[in-house]
Parts: sequence; C-alpha cells; structure tokens
Amino acid sequence: MDAGLCFSGGKDSALAALVLESFYDVTLVCGTFGITDDAAHAAEAAAAIGFPFERLELDEAVAHEAVERMLDDGYPRNGIQRVHDHALERLAEAEFDAIADGTRRDDRVPTVSRAQAQSLEDRHSVDYLAPLSGFGRSAVDDLVDERLEVEVGPSEELPKGDYEAELRALIREEYDEAVGAVFPEHDQTRVVGLQE
Amino acid sequence: MDAGLCFSGGKDSALAALVLESFYDVTLVCGTFGITDDAAHAAEAAAAIGFPFERLELDEAVAHEAVERMLDDGYPRNGIQRVHDHALERLAEAEFDAIADGTRRDDRVPTVSRAQAQSLEDRHSVDYLAPLSGFGRSAVDDLVDERLEVEVGPSEELPKGDYEAELRALIREEYDEAVGAVFPEHDQTRVVGLQE
Repeated sequence: MDAGLCFSGGKDSALAALVLESFYDVTLVCGTFGITDDAAHAAEAAAAIGFPFERLELDEAVAHEAVERMLDDGYPRNGIQRVHDHALERLAEAEFDAIADGTRRDDRVPTVSRAQAQSLEDRHSVDYLAPLSGFGRSAVDDLVDERLEVEVGPSEELPKGDYEAELRALIREEYDEAVGAVFPEHDQTRVVGLQE
Repeated sequence: MDAGLCFSGGKDSALAALVLESFYDVTLVCGTFGITDDAAHAAEAAAAIGFPFERLELDEAVAHEAVERMLDDGYPRNGIQRVHDHALERLAEAEFDAIADGTRRDDRVPTVSRAQAQSLEDRHSVDYLAPLSGFGRSAVDDLVDERLEVEVGPSEELPKGDYEAELRALIREEYDEAVGAVFPEHDQTRVVGLQE
C-alpha cells in the first residue's frame, strides 16, 4: 500500500514517515502555492532521510484567503488550519491508498477531528492517517532525538517547506503589514538526516 | 526505551505492538483480576508474535464495581472504561519509560482523552502512547490482514485475555443475571502469528 504524507522538512512530519515506513510505501509530499521555492528545502530533507518526494500544487487563492484571515485575527491559527484543510483535500485527490500528516496529540494547530478524517475518507475512498496523534510532546521529542538529525534556528533564517514560509513571503510582498504582526519569531527545526 | 503495552491477545493490541517495535523495547502486559486464567491466552498470543509478556495484577474490587455498573446500565461501556482506566494506572506504576494501549481512532470504548493522557504522564513521569489512535477502522483492518494471522470466533468460545472474559466469569459465578444481559454475543479475534 502507498501513502502520501504532508511533509514540510520538519521533525514531526519526518518522524511520522518513520512510523509509517514499516507498513506503507511512503512518499513525502510538500504542498506549495508556487509563491517561493521553499519546497526545495523539503525536497532536500526528504532526500536526507531517504524517502521519495513530490510537490503538490495548492490553490494560490487559498493562500490569500488564509493571509487575510490571519491579518484580521492577529494570529495565525485559523489561517494555517485553512491551508492544511486545503492541502489534505488536494492530497486526497491524488493516487494514494492512504494520506497522512504529522499532527501530534498535543498540537493546537493544525488539527483534524475524527469527523473530518472520516469525511475525507468517505468522500475520497482513501485512508487518512495521523501516526503521531497518539504521541505526546515528550515522547515525540525523545523519538526525534533518537532517530533524526535536526537543525534548529529562527523561522526567518531556517527556511523549510511549510506553509508558513510561503505565507510570510506573501505578506511581505503583497500586504502592507509587518510579518511579525501575524507570525511571532520562533524557532523551527529542519531535518538533515537520520541518526547513525 | 522500554514500553509496556496493554495486551489482550487481540488484533488491535498486537498491531499496536508492531507499530511501536521500531522505536521501543515492547513488553506485552495483560491485566488480570485473577478470576480466570484467561491471561494465559494472551501469553500464548504474545509468544506467537514474538514479544515478551507479563501479567499485571488488577484489583478485584474494581471488577465488582465494573460489573455492578454494567448490570445497572444494561450495557458494558462504562464498566469496561472503568477497568481500562484502572489498568492504565497500574501499568503507569510499573517500571516502563512509556505505557501504551491499542485504542483506535474509531473506538467508542475504551477511550483515553488528551487530558487523561496528560494527567497519567504528569502524575507518573511516564509517556502514554496510543499508536493506533491516528488510524481508522479500515486502515487497521488492512494492516492486520497484511501483518497478522488471526482466528475469529464467538466471544464465549474464543477466550482471550481481555477484561471481558473475566467479567463474564464474574457475572456467571457471583451475580444472579445472565451474561447476555450485559454482553451481547459477538465475534472476537485472537492473534495466532505473524503473516509470513
């Protein structure tokens, strides 16, 4: 069976791939609006941990909608959720037996409710998997330390292929607002290999 | 890191063990009230799939409390939940880095909420893992077919080491009620090996 996993190059989606690889032929898939080439960072991370990689084209109108929602709200949560919902719908339309993401039990955003998961599955005849949803933050951190080599740095300087990089660029280029008004500076992680 | 996984001999807890084995040294643990020797069936199933096995002593007072609740309710859900909560507390007191169970995304009972998971973790300095909680019924069924050999049969004739077997025996022996008043007859599965 094959599975397409939403992949940003970060540690959570990389660990999700390691959980699934005993059971599925996993392809790491980075959704991109085509605003920047940050998906290239996800492609590098996928190669570093030895998985096949694909780009998934997202609808740029959704990026605008998400940014406007974030600017209205003054925080990113609902906008990020909107983009993730859209990416899962697109991924479910692709030719995989199962689609997956790296959401963890203790994440606040994005989240996928059981009802939303079942709706995706029923409408697209696909399984939706959230292999980390039964793991809390401390367990995920321990497993990442044990299995992955990661780089940590500020989000502006450590580009990866998550939605945030493209949405930041969109705000910078097209909206008369400081990126910091929506995305507070925070540390990101990017996977650079497997632990020996 | 070692993990103790609540194990009945059934397919869900066996699959949960296969998900965890890439990351943890997994011991399969069958909680027992000492009412019957049904834990022996779980021990056999554990041996059939190649995992170490331990029995975990549960408090017989909890079995009585659970049966009385079931007889009052006329259905087993709350009683089963009570026993599972007790088993997790006992398991959390044992010497494992992580404790786990085979609850699936689409299960109605037992369930462990995020708040309950975090409470277990905080009080016992242990990680709680629910490796199947991000998998729906159809994905679990596919993975079981691919990886496990199972026997299927009516619950009265296919004893395994789940709580139900001991609670059925307790109702038969000590309460003046038909077992069928609480547990409708249904098919169970018992793991007999790994697929080649």
